[in-house]
Amino acid sequence: MRYLTAGESHGPQLTVIVEGLPSQLPFSKEKIDHQLSRRQKGHGRGRRMQIESDQVEIVGGVRFGKTTGAPVALVIENKDWTHWQKIMTPSPDPQDEEKRRISRPRPGHADLNGAIKYNHRDMRDVLERSSARETAARVAVGAVARQILELCQIRLVGHVLRIGEVTAERILETPWEQMIEQIDQSPVRCMDRSVEQAMMDLIDLAKKEGDSLGGVVEVMVEGVPVGLGSHVQWDRKLDGRLAQAIVSINAFKGVEFGIGFEAAEKLGSQVHDEIAWSKERGFYRKTNRLGGFEGGMTTGEPLIIRGVMKPIPTLYKPLMSVDIDSKEPFAASIERSDSCAVPAASVVAENVVAWEIAQALLEKFPADTIDELVEQVEEYRKRVVAF
Amino acid sequence: MRYLTAGESHGPQLTVIVEGLPSQLPFSKEKIDHQLSRRQKGHGRGRRMQIESDQVEIVGGVRFGKTTGAPVALVIENKDWTHWQKIMTPSPDPQDEEKRRISRPRPGHADLNGAIKYNHRDMRDVLERSSARETAARVAVGAVARQILELCQIRLVGHVLRIGEVTAERILETPWEQMIEQIDQSPVRCMDRSVEQAMMDLIDLAKKEGDSLGGVVEVMVEGVPVGLGSHVQWDRKLDGRLAQAIVSINAFKGVEFGIGFEAAEKLGSQVHDEIAWSKERGFYRKTNRLGGFEGGMTTGEPLIIRGVMKPIPTLYKPLMSVDIDSKEPFAASIERSDSCAVPAASVVAENVVAWEIAQALLEKFPADTIDELVEQVEEYRKRVVAF
Amino acid sequence: MRYLTAGESHGPQLTVIVEGLPSQLPFSKEKIDHQLSRRQKGHGRGRRMQIESDQVEIVGGVRFGKTTGAPVALVIENKDWTHWQKIMTPSPDPQDEEKRRISRPRPGHADLNGAIKYNHRDMRDVLERSSARETAARVAVGAVARQILELCQIRLVGHVLRIGEVTAERILETPWEQMIEQIDQSPVRCMDRSVEQAMMDLIDLAKKEGDSLGGVVEVMVEGVPVGLGSHVQWDRKLDGRLAQAIVSINAFKGVEFGIGFEAAEKLGSQVHDEIAWSKERGFYRKTNRLGGFEGGMTTGEPLIIRGVMKPIPTLYKPLMSVDIDSKEPFAASIERSDSCAVPAASVVAENVVAWEIAQALLEKFPADTIDELVEQVEEYRKRVVAF
Amino acid sequence: MRYLTAGESHGPQLTVIVEGLPSQLPFSKEKIDHQLSRRQKGHGRGRRMQIESDQVEIVGGVRFGKTTGAPVALVIENKDWTHWQKIMTPSPDPQDEEKRRISRPRPGHADLNGAIKYNHRDMRDVLERSSARETAARVAVGAVARQILELCQIRLVGHVLRIGEVTAERILETPWEQMIEQIDQSPVRCMDRSVEQAMMDLIDLAKKEGDSLGGVVEVMVEGVPVGLGSHVQWDRKLDGRLAQAIVSINAFKGVEFGIGFEAAEKLGSQVHDEIAWSKERGFYRKTNRLGGFEGGMTTGEPLIIRGVMKPIPTLYKPLMSVDIDSKEPFAASIERSDSCAVPAASVVAENVVAWEIAQALLEKFPADTIDELVEQVEEYRKRVVAF
Repeated sequence: MRYLTAGESHGPQLTVIVEGLPSQLPFSKEKIDHQLSRRQKGHGRGRRMQIESDQVEIVGGVRFGKTTGAPVALVIENKDWTHWQKIMTPSPDPQDEEKRRISRPRPGHADLNGAIKYNHRDMRDVLERSSARETAARVAVGAVARQILELCQIRLVGHVLRIGEVTAERILETPWEQMIEQIDQSPVRCMDRSVEQAMMDLIDLAKKEGDSLGGVVEVMVEGVPVGLGSHVQWDRKLDGRLAQAIVSINAFKGVEFGIGFEAAEKLGSQVHDEIAWSKERGFYRKTNRLGGFEGGMTTGEPLIIRGVMKPIPTLYKPLMSVDIDSKEPFAASIERSDSCAVPAASVVAENVVAWEIAQALLEKFPADTIDELVEQVEEYRKRVVAF
Repeated sequence: MRYLTAGESHGPQLTVIVEGLPSQLPFSKEKIDHQLSRRQKGHGRGRRMQIESDQVEIVGGVRFGKTTGAPVALVIENKDWTHWQKIMTPSPDPQDEEKRRISRPRPGHADLNGAIKYNHRDMRDVLERSSARETAARVAVGAVARQILELCQIRLVGHVLRIGEVTAERILETPWEQMIEQIDQSPVRCMDRSVEQAMMDLIDLAKKEGDSLGGVVEVMVEGVPVGLGSHVQWDRKLDGRLAQAIVSINAFKGVEFGIGFEAAEKLGSQVHDEIAWSKERGFYRKTNRLGGFEGGMTTGEPLIIRGVMKPIPTLYKPLMSVDIDSKEPFAASIERSDSCAVPAASVVAENVVAWEIAQALLEKFPADTIDELVEQVEEYRKRVVAF
Repeated sequence: MRYLTAGESHGPQLTVIVEGLPSQLPFSKEKIDHQLSRRQKGHGRGRRMQIESDQVEIVGGVRFGKTTGAPVALVIENKDWTHWQKIMTPSPDPQDEEKRRISRPRPGHADLNGAIKYNHRDMRDVLERSSARETAARVAVGAVARQILELCQIRLVGHVLRIGEVTAERILETPWEQMIEQIDQSPVRCMDRSVEQAMMDLIDLAKKEGDSLGGVVEVMVEGVPVGLGSHVQWDRKLDGRLAQAIVSINAFKGVEFGIGFEAAEKLGSQVHDEIAWSKERGFYRKTNRLGGFEGGMTTGEPLIIRGVMKPIPTLYKPLMSVDIDSKEPFAASIERSDSCAVPAASVVAENVVAWEIAQALLEKFPADTIDELVEQVEEYRKRVVAF
Repeated sequence: MRYLTAGESHGPQLTVIVEGLPSQLPFSKEKIDHQLSRRQKGHGRGRRMQIESDQVEIVGGVRFGKTTGAPVALVIENKDWTHWQKIMTPSPDPQDEEKRRISRPRPGHADLNGAIKYNHRDMRDVLERSSARETAARVAVGAVARQILELCQIRLVGHVLRIGEVTAERILETPWEQMIEQIDQSPVRCMDRSVEQAMMDLIDLAKKEGDSLGGVVEVMVEGVPVGLGSHVQWDRKLDGRLAQAIVSINAFKGVEFGIGFEAAEKLGSQVHDEIAWSKERGFYRKTNRLGGFEGGMTTGEPLIIRGVMKPIPTLYKPLMSVDIDSKEPFAASIERSDSCAVPAASVVAENVVAWEIAQALLEKFPADTIDELVEQVEEYRKRVVAF
């Protein structure tokens, strides 16, 4: 499987092509729209998230509710396109629009280095693509992937572990469905109800002060079969691929697996997961400190993947920058912004992970049709227990 | 550029093919051997590092001290091969060797999930390849890449920031050469001399107790031009690729860029780097909290990449596991081991990063000859200052 | 550069994403539409070509008439979509449409093997994607690529050398512009005016008899710099890549370069191109029997690439087949069809080649911006003359 | 699966790394050596083929006669290396060797365009890698692949259809084993005994006159399951990939499938293969004019792939060329050469095809162990018959 996305933040649409899906996969527009709407929620989002209510249109690869095996093409329209048409037109006659050139790079964005790389004097030509708007396309792709995962009894959820100085507890004894419900209902996508209010207050405070907040999100994946990824060549290690997927989400500055950076502080005897066996389960681990990976391959334990998101750089509280034309310093100002996008980012992370798992699944199992895949995964699970 | 590695820990050799190098690149066996020897040093390494003194043999792609443009093939021989020949023979007549089958998976290694995936009843068939021995091959690849970087005025160093509970200061005011010298002379590859002894003591203690230690390593890269990587498609973001490269090093459980996970705690106004300009330097950042990346592209500031290594799982202090044949529990014992491989890992990380930067360089400035590359990079640097 | 296409023959649209284009490339919708219209012409096309008048819509990656470096997304709408909406809907409620299931595979199409592979009982789920309609998307991609080639002084043309038993002469002394004009004006895209009528008569005859005709097309590329592709690894040889590109066009059964299959009959002394040199041109070949390739690399001589297209398999004259449900034999009937698509195929081949050349160009030369590319190609051309 | 090769014609060794093989694959050095020796035979080979008797050494990925899943590394030593050590040393001190610089490019070789591309003044730096010696590495890779094919009941053979003006009949009624025996015993690898002598005479004549001969080779593959490759995206069409594989063999100038270029002359009703069905076989084709492909996918009929090889350009009968230093014309002379390498090339083509089929098999039936693959292929075959 592979995919490409295209489209600008204020262009007519985001476009996605997903190639290599199994045929016969029940393909639900509603499930994609559901993921898109989850991305748009969360305490701390600015005005734009209210304007938009993203919906996907399926323009290829699906017929009568199922994939055909042909590439799937998806479109997410920009509901606000009419207002942007003149500014974003592909036509070679921009008229007065050149005057609206953006010559003032915002710190923390791709504006300046993108402009230098691609030699743009109007930084709109960078920021329209570098915008986090693109994550809607990646969520759509993940939403496709999770329709595969679902049929293979793999489920996943992303949630918020930290916003600014407020940290949540990981409450793992809750049954999975209940846990997901709590997370989805939480305005900050937090499984720990006791800190929700503190997180929201912190966000409100930051907003009031024209500042912004980052945080830590975690994705948990349950039901992943043993042996996805491979130790045999560095670029086939699945944790490595997930690391790339997470860090490539806008504003993410790090990723860790299982106990992650804590592993630096601990002794070897405290870090590894002892191996146990029972007739019913086969081999399993007594703990899951390594977050479901050994040797770049899944162990069968739940995957635990965390990413850190920096605070959104578009601040009401200005940062100093320099105009690329006049070379004069200025205070970087903004029109409108989210003050905290961490809850939304947990949904992005979740869907980005979904894609990588589905991908790894299709590298291990035959799947021109979804039935072959499901059947093979089931047979393999039996073999694993009997190993 | 692309490469593949092959070879087992106790096989006859590690083999590397590097494809897509520019021609005319001065190619020094000594420089590769030098990197290999740096990997073998460090307080806390076990006996094996003394046996081996890795040397590379060039068996393709280089003539009269320069690359020809043809794929470069490198061999790192196993000096101890004669002792392993019977156990590791590719020949189909293993004689008594089947009896020496490894049926006892070690926690924290790829033994068990690798065996299930590839259906091995002798876990030697997994562990020989999943062994960190393979990092010697990746160091060799990085050592090739850095011969490109050197000519493009890009330099890099890996060092140790933390071992167990001992944390080093980042001393950034030291001139680069001096800093590298200090790091290379330190038995724990630490730039902060004040904690060296404490680190070594901690390692010795762990060793005495049959335990092991992990830590945090950091790679700094200086002289990287603006605009390597790209924001336009998620898989072209260079920080994402580096994240994959770092996490795919054996025993690494996380990666972060710039202030990394600290970004979760801070306000937006404290996290981003203000933009400044001077005639001599062109645009630059007043700080480097984002570690040299914005929008997945380099900003021209030094790259700051940190990875966390878990303690080596091969402990004298045993962990419980289960025999795959008898299904009986046992205490996982070992023959010999390092108690801390963090200093060596900082060399691996450094070389792994070198490859990715060289790769990104050649994607931005495709080059059939090294002279074209160097010329292009220089011209581009001028254009960047004049932007 | 890379691209993906999606879309079905009677779906709402064809969708294309082209990734990795240089920025600042003047991007003309008209030039793409022009190529699309060339594909739709030609004596022997059926009714559909009259219905459609393909037009591209640019929905990403282009602003004010230039690329931004972001992925370009293109849409070619199906003008006839309203009539097909019920039959092709992605919605899971097909109503009566299941009854219209296609259970009768046509010989010479992907219907049967595609249905087996993807487990379809309605072969529309195969044929909608395997249809030559998809070549419109590939022409659009080629039309993008040739805007790069044009600026690098590389031009190309596809023409018809043979239809059925009628063979054209290659008239190479004509100046390039004039040759192209003749080809573009010819209803059979033939440079040899003396056989045009015979070709058209043959097509009319085949049509009358409910039969179809194939033929041979040739693509010539002029101005290609020396050294695109590489001999160093098999998958980097440019003639190999072009072979894949040509054979992957619907209904193509072979490809050859220069004298191609004739080389089997001749002696070595008659096949190779002697090398000459002049101060103005540098090195050149006295002849061009090898079609511009040696060692998988371009020699600087014009590229000569020929492909053979089988006759369209959709015949009024029926072929025997078997219903996949009833297993009863039947005579494969059709509704409507072209009797000869060879002229159109020469346009497809031309544009498919354009993409591969542009791709090879961008692998050899730096090109985040089109200016860098043009400049580098020019400098390299000088170096080549001075070699 | 993927692979890289490295090594020069007169370097110490050819090196191959094959990545992604299933584990548990019986891996026979003898079978690889057998393929290597087949490549070295054939009437018309020069002296070198007698010196060499290529043998493979397995230096990774195989233990006790089976693959482990780890990358397989293979070495083919150059038996003549001691004589070439000074000329080919990677060491930077070439001493007097610079004097032996090759400044005289041979027509028909990569010498000149390779030298321009990689800026070599000594064309040995090109020709050592562009030499057909590299095909030994590709044969080794194919020999690995065919061990997979064998277990999946897929067999293949390459043979010579034409040398110069002598054309063989395709004798298809012979049972497969007998046919292979005849081909393997024929000094010109020809299935038509009646023309063997004429071919040999022609080769002897060409040799006497200092000239060389090309020809046409054909590869037939039997037992390929329906539906390898895919119609859904152009670069997944298997005939396209095979076209690349064949054309990338040294000196190949074209490729065709089934009736190939003949398709241009015929009517549609004469070209396509009617579909039939029987309970035992399921669907099949009454003829196989399309060579086992429809829509870029296999049909289940034998694959028929032909390639054309130009005469070897290294002639005793000189061709004119120009010295790159003096710019003086000269008559390109040679030391020794084959006069006809077409029989050997049929072995190369065969093994190159083997790799692509095995690759396509593993894309349709991803498999960590060979048993999973074999099982999946068998189950699928049943499903195909029952379709």
